[in-house]
Amino acid sequence: MSNQSEPILLINFKTYLEATGKKAVELARKMETVGQETGVRVGVAPQFCDIEQVAAHVKIPVFAQHLDPITPGAFTGHVLAESVNAAGATGTLINHSERNLKLPEIEKSVERAREVGLITVVCAGTARLGAAVALFEPDMVAIEPPELIGSGRAVSKESPEIITESVRRIRAVNGQVRILCGAGITTGEDVYAALKLGTQGVLVASGVVKASEPERVLRDFCEAVRKYTYK
Amino acid sequence: MSNQSEPILLINFKTYLEATGKKAVELARKMETVGQETGVRVGVAPQFCDIEQVAAHVKIPVFAQHLDPITPGAFTGHVLAESVNAAGATGTLINHSERNLKLPEIEKSVERAREVGLITVVCAGTARLGAAVALFEPDMVAIEPPELIGSGRAVSKESPEIITESVRRIRAVNGQVRILCGAGITTGEDVYAALKLGTQGVLVASGVVKASEPERVLRDFCEAVRKYTYK
Amino acid sequence: MSNQSEPILLINFKTYLEATGKKAVELARKMETVGQETGVRVGVAPQFCDIEQVAAHVKIPVFAQHLDPITPGAFTGHVLAESVNAAGATGTLINHSERNLKLPEIEKSVERAREVGLITVVCAGTARLGAAVALFEPDMVAIEPPELIGSGRAVSKESPEIITESVRRIRAVNGQVRILCGAGITTGEDVYAALKLGTQGVLVASGVVKASEPERVLRDFCEAVRKYTYK
Amino acid sequence: MSNQSEPILLINFKTYLEATGKKAVELARKMETVGQETGVRVGVAPQFCDIEQVAAHVKIPVFAQHLDPITPGAFTGHVLAESVNAAGATGTLINHSERNLKLPEIEKSVERAREVGLITVVCAGTARLGAAVALFEPDMVAIEPPELIGSGRAVSKESPEIITESVRRIRAVNGQVRILCGAGITTGEDVYAALKLGTQGVLVASGVVKASEPERVLRDFCEAVRKYTYK
Repeated sequence: MSNQSEPILLINFKTYLEATGKKAVELARKMETVGQETGVRVGVAPQFCDIEQVAAHVKIPVFAQHLDPITPGAFTGHVLAESVNAAGATGTLINHSERNLKLPEIEKSVERAREVGLITVVCAGTARLGAAVALFEPDMVAIEPPELIGSGRAVSKESPEIITESVRRIRAVNGQVRILCGAGITTGEDVYAALKLGTQGVLVASGVVKASEPERVLRDFCEAVRKYTYK
Repeated sequence: MSNQSEPILLINFKTYLEATGKKAVELARKMETVGQETGVRVGVAPQFCDIEQVAAHVKIPVFAQHLDPITPGAFTGHVLAESVNAAGATGTLINHSERNLKLPEIEKSVERAREVGLITVVCAGTARLGAAVALFEPDMVAIEPPELIGSGRAVSKESPEIITESVRRIRAVNGQVRILCGAGITTGEDVYAALKLGTQGVLVASGVVKASEPERVLRDFCEAVRKYTYK
Repeated sequence: MSNQSEPILLINFKTYLEATGKKAVELARKMETVGQETGVRVGVAPQFCDIEQVAAHVKIPVFAQHLDPITPGAFTGHVLAESVNAAGATGTLINHSERNLKLPEIEKSVERAREVGLITVVCAGTARLGAAVALFEPDMVAIEPPELIGSGRAVSKESPEIITESVRRIRAVNGQVRILCGAGITTGEDVYAALKLGTQGVLVASGVVKASEPERVLRDFCEAVRKYTYK
Repeated sequence: MSNQSEPILLINFKTYLEATGKKAVELARKMETVGQETGVRVGVAPQFCDIEQVAAHVKIPVFAQHLDPITPGAFTGHVLAESVNAAGATGTLINHSERNLKLPEIEKSVERAREVGLITVVCAGTARLGAAVALFEPDMVAIEPPELIGSGRAVSKESPEIITESVRRIRAVNGQVRILCGAGITTGEDVYAALKLGTQGVLVASGVVKASEPERVLRDFCEAVRKYTYK
């Protein structure tokens, strides 16, 4: 993921049945195909149990949805950085609003991910929280106002000021981090608006995963990325 | 796992590096071999990311280490019963002392596991807690006093009264549930003592996983099971 | 609280502004007055910061709303049994559905309360959870289905089978514990129904605290208790 | 607390028996006396149940040890800003390492404290976490490396670089916030070192509360403050 300026579309599979087990592999393949055909960078974040199979079947980046701030040892039921890595993931979400961590845990999880070479995408629900997590120097910060997640009302259309403010606050403390946004994104227009507001990508879940034709929706997103990139 | 009277040895891989990724598959294979050779029932509980590969390579029961009390949906970073099942697990630990749940979450996790056909092993640290979780009618209750976990001092030798009391209290509310015990188990003698105290199996982690020769240790355990069974 | 057969009405002040600071003291006094006038046993559960003042101004039992499973020491921001006791409380709620605890924490909190002489009221949302917590031998178990809390639809009218089943399951494991129920209770009729179903009291919050005339509502409840008791 | 340049000594009572109930009031009075005699600003942070009585008996600032990120309503067992305020507290600790919050909860707790006029002291265990919480614009940030808390090895002597780095990182994002440090502080020399490293105060607990003569220790601290201030 060398070219930092090229936008990325990251699809969070959450714990949707439409993206569990064999369906996770199928969906990831469709996402890969659309990415290849449009030349846009696409990544997927399946459930823990599906990482290995998804990573075995696609060449696009695969992310875990969460990482525990632990080192190898007696932590039954937790998610170890080395395990995620061994399964073939290239990165991980951290502190998603559906899996918030305590503050020191975020710092530790980012460190653990970095130690094993995982790309880190730390989520935050507000501009100020985005700046706070940007201090941990993750690879990406994803701004997702929880109240818009799954709403179908795109953050980039409904609350553009949250994104503008997030970009401003994050850039004040971290000039390098890639900024994504998400919540309610369902159309290429929403994606275009997000990029125009200063982000370098979009984190999306139900808008793609629960769509009747996920490829069609992702294609729409990718075309928006191309339109924006070559504008 | 039809014959309830036949003891079971369940190996919890925790998040030990010795049992992560390819090493999880290798260790599970060794456990399977020893189980086959001795005719003793052996199960393994690898990390989430390793369930699929372990289940693909062995025929012994594979358990998840934890399950979240969720239904399919927007639960990023959580562990869905359907996902664990699709990966090939036959059961799951719930409420391990390193991953304790709130009380209503235990009830819900047992229900969710049952709905998808997963065998449930609910952990508890004391006799009274064991009886409390036995009310949820899981397939097994595993008594592990947290203070002895990883101590090398076997609960069955060090604190036999905890097991006796657990069996008594659990049986007062549930005549069916299989009772396991664990914590500090490192020798066949410890296993024998556990069975003699009225349990139907043992949950073990570091005693096997971190041993220099895990097969040798497990073989020792299995011989104790045979000695007890055919006594 | 010697006479176990005499019903009790316990008013949970939650964190309602109508029952914070001076208003907590005023409300507790009104509750005391109604209790005295009707001869019915009434208790109140104000916020931590209000326990001392409420206990200084009324003679009815005062309960904390929560207790942490800690011993004296370095536990900044936690609620210590000795502190609750020193402030003048006679008891404490434990594991309210708005403040659920992990399973071993419930056992420990009941022990800590007992050690300092606090009456324990352990809450549970279902019949099975009620039986589970009854194993810890608290003084009272309060059954409150979370989905009915604050709904205005009384558990005793809307879901009488939950109460019947709770009484049955709890009595199977504990013949001594006082059984309360709550959720949606707003009228004397609801209270009467609760007692008739086999409970020995009611836990109520918004139905009294947020009523335009709390005394009037409590008086209605108390008359229902008298009617039931002398039926 | 107008003069930002004047150092403050804040005594956290934790849940020590030596500072519970009547002893909390007595200890607070001693702290007040020493503060008055030396002319140094001293504050105390007693347990929730003791806030009202402590605030009624001393004129020095009284802090809660924790605040929940809630508005008035159905939050049984939680700590409401309005309640802490009504009891007479002038401020509150937030996110102490013994009571860490999830990231969005910190932001919300600071907001809630500000809304009711409480002074906010947000704790953090590392320099980077200190900067992260400074973005929420609390009145004070307290840096306490958890590994040194209660150790008797003063952060200002043992790990001066943590404080220097904290001051540097915090000042990079917030020029206004008062910076405290704590952990292992037991002598006036430790306090002097802390101030010299660029902090404007010290957060201390066992070093004072569990001392055989708390006044003597605090007096030692206060003299160090005076020595530093008039150097």
